[in-house]
Amino acid sequence: MNLFRRKKKLVTLQSNQMNMFRRKKKQGKNSDVHKGSENIAKQWKTLSGESNWKGLLDPPGPDLRSYIIHYGEMAQATYDAFNSVKVSKYAGTSRYARKDLLSRVGVTQGRPLNKYQVTKYIYAASSIALPDAFIVKSLSREAWSKESNWMGFVAVATDDGKLVLGRRDILVAWRGTIQTLEWVNDLDFTLVSGPKIFGENNDDDPKIHQGWYSIYTTEDPRSPYNKTSARDQVLTEVKRLVEQYKNEEISLTITGHSLGSAIATLNAIDMVLNGINKPKGMPNKTCLVTTFVFASPRVGDSTFKKVFSSQNNLHALRIRNALDVVPNYPIIGYSDVGMELVIDTTKSGYLKSPGSLSSWHSLEAYMHGVAGTQGSKGGFKLEVNRDISLVNKHLDCLKDEYGIPASWWCEKNNSMVQKEDGSWMLMDHEDDDFYP
Amino acid sequence: MNLFRRKKKLVTLQSNQMNMFRRKKKQGKNSDVHKGSENIAKQWKTLSGESNWKGLLDPPGPDLRSYIIHYGEMAQATYDAFNSVKVSKYAGTSRYARKDLLSRVGVTQGRPLNKYQVTKYIYAASSIALPDAFIVKSLSREAWSKESNWMGFVAVATDDGKLVLGRRDILVAWRGTIQTLEWVNDLDFTLVSGPKIFGENNDDDPKIHQGWYSIYTTEDPRSPYNKTSARDQVLTEVKRLVEQYKNEEISLTITGHSLGSAIATLNAIDMVLNGINKPKGMPNKTCLVTTFVFASPRVGDSTFKKVFSSQNNLHALRIRNALDVVPNYPIIGYSDVGMELVIDTTKSGYLKSPGSLSSWHSLEAYMHGVAGTQGSKGGFKLEVNRDISLVNKHLDCLKDEYGIPASWWCEKNNSMVQKEDGSWMLMDHEDDDFYP
Repeated sequence: MNLFRRKKKLVTLQSNQMNMFRRKKKQGKNSDVHKGSENIAKQWKTLSGESNWKGLLDPPGPDLRSYIIHYGEMAQATYDAFNSVKVSKYAGTSRYARKDLLSRVGVTQGRPLNKYQVTKYIYAASSIALPDAFIVKSLSREAWSKESNWMGFVAVATDDGKLVLGRRDILVAWRGTIQTLEWVNDLDFTLVSGPKIFGENNDDDPKIHQGWYSIYTTEDPRSPYNKTSARDQVLTEVKRLVEQYKNEEISLTITGHSLGSAIATLNAIDMVLNGINKPKGMPNKTCLVTTFVFASPRVGDSTFKKVFSSQNNLHALRIRNALDVVPNYPIIGYSDVGMELVIDTTKSGYLKSPGSLSSWHSLEAYMHGVAGTQGSKGGFKLEVNRDISLVNKHLDCLKDEYGIPASWWCEKNNSMVQKEDGSWMLMDHEDDDFYP
Repeated sequence: MNLFRRKKKLVTLQSNQMNMFRRKKKQGKNSDVHKGSENIAKQWKTLSGESNWKGLLDPPGPDLRSYIIHYGEMAQATYDAFNSVKVSKYAGTSRYARKDLLSRVGVTQGRPLNKYQVTKYIYAASSIALPDAFIVKSLSREAWSKESNWMGFVAVATDDGKLVLGRRDILVAWRGTIQTLEWVNDLDFTLVSGPKIFGENNDDDPKIHQGWYSIYTTEDPRSPYNKTSARDQVLTEVKRLVEQYKNEEISLTITGHSLGSAIATLNAIDMVLNGINKPKGMPNKTCLVTTFVFASPRVGDSTFKKVFSSQNNLHALRIRNALDVVPNYPIIGYSDVGMELVIDTTKSGYLKSPGSLSSWHSLEAYMHGVAGTQGSKGGFKLEVNRDISLVNKHLDCLKDEYGIPASWWCEKNNSMVQKEDGSWMLMDHEDDDFYP
């Protein structure tokens, strides 16, 4: 397979985007981001894959780059907020309350696209044994939960956000695995039917990965956070929002990275197959459902691919970094779904060469790659104003000459807070007013 | 040699201390620290080694424990403030301005003994090649200095501090090496004369370690921070303070850990031999000079030891953790000076067993050891209210069950600060009004 679909002639839209971008470059350093938003409101359906991004990917225009990065930042938020400190009783949950999540992870400042209200946190458990990396277990005897992990969130564009995005976007972001990549070696490739998604008697009987399905659908009565499955939590909340905004133009967008990508893909087809994207009592209204997934492992077999591809109003863009190994797993019996945007972060002159398994898989590196890929013509040049220092948030990717510390993302003193008497205590969790 | 000097009968002072401590324990959790301070003001000369801590060390009473820890915290401040991020242009300097140093490193809150004004920052270079760990070099082309490192500070007790400490304490704290212990393998044991300390024609000709002497005395005209040596910076400042407070009771206390201990020891004898502890025009006034040094490598030969021991008004307490290797270096041709307090952090039930080269050498672990050692009777029990979570500041020492993150000490986002436009910049340095 060619890494890029070669098109002799860029479609008009993309040429327009390029011209608009060149114009905006002259207006000042950040104008691309801000001006781009007006553009995005007008073309959101195209950017969300209504025409399956035909002719838009080699390379993407600046609006599509910003748009993809916007969703990447929502997936990144689930990592930046995640508490993976195993000795903490809050290991496996979000450090921040729902209402502050996006501002606390720094994706609201200077980001006109990111105006959402987070309305629901998602928790998941698993009924089958999975690699340790998938569910972080607290070592504390007073752990908030022994079974569940925070797996992401549902959010809805605010009124301001709607202006910039062109419609009321309902967003689901799924967290992946924060740990190193050893889990790919532990990954089995057992395929199972998915009755909750595809129904009990589906003639096609698409098969999907047992692990992804388990995390998505497991209920665990022992955990107050998983009396219902992650699936039920999300579907209920999205249904509620679709109902609330049914008189507006609505889109459903699902994003994720790594393991989160696989679950996002299941979640997306589930919403379409089970009519979550259709407001009740409005037979003529169907919302566009789109997934932007980064570094996605494979999700199902060729039948799953066939079913996925045959849905109307369902579009998937998989972003894949050339040297990342995760998109190759599971290796046997699986098929990729949706369209593919291949980037290659080894072409970036900003990053340490050659990188590593971790850096090729890192979501921040992916966003850097989206900002700078030149597609099949080769090379690398940042076409949107993406801060390079972000690639060093959790890794040591950036060349030393840029003077950015490695793995810099952290709370002050890792959330140890000094009390009046001089002693210290761990305060690494903020509760919402109501919970979960 | 016995680890502890065995005394059948504790001297009265220590018994009193123990009784007072027991009484205070009943008054509430923190009363030992606060009440202890009154006691300290009265007995400061004893605690500062006027009688060479005779009978006070096996084990130390609560006041002496608090007193030693107080100086340890001043040495620890030099680590907690030190910028060791090599890609930063400020690598090798203090993150915090002089005036805020002690509050920024968290040693003022609830600490009545720590009321000092930091009056001078000390910078050092070296004229000889030293292990990399000793001088942190910035990788930045715009480095604040290519030659110098921040090596500690001079401070003086405030009026409030004087009340608690019983006299106007002038303090010098020397920074050690922040990095791992590989440097002990690279350490040569070349002994040299020390003319700047001992004079050009000293009949005894004590010999001291070439490396410690170089850091202490090197001037480097290339560096604006070392137009004068660390020695000259300190002596000039201490002289100024002694002059300023000459009509009060004054003490000079020098502290350090690891490499900083070695330099503190040189600095202490230098002050005595060169009369820095004698205010001008007051022939009958000599100030007590004391070093509290933690994890000290050896400093000089047996002649150095003889000269050191024969000084009036010079007292040194070396605190040594039983399994720490650094106090054994350099191995050949060197002698220990001063009195020794041996602790053994492997006896602490709070710490992971058995620990490691790094944890046995860690200054925070030393302070934990001082708080809990039971001396030759064996065992471990915290006798002063020292927060156990501090041992995890820079290492993973504490048992997981206490729920404290490993290596928790850091600035938020390692000093990456988000700007209004959403981008990030490194802001890891605060300048003083005047500098250095």
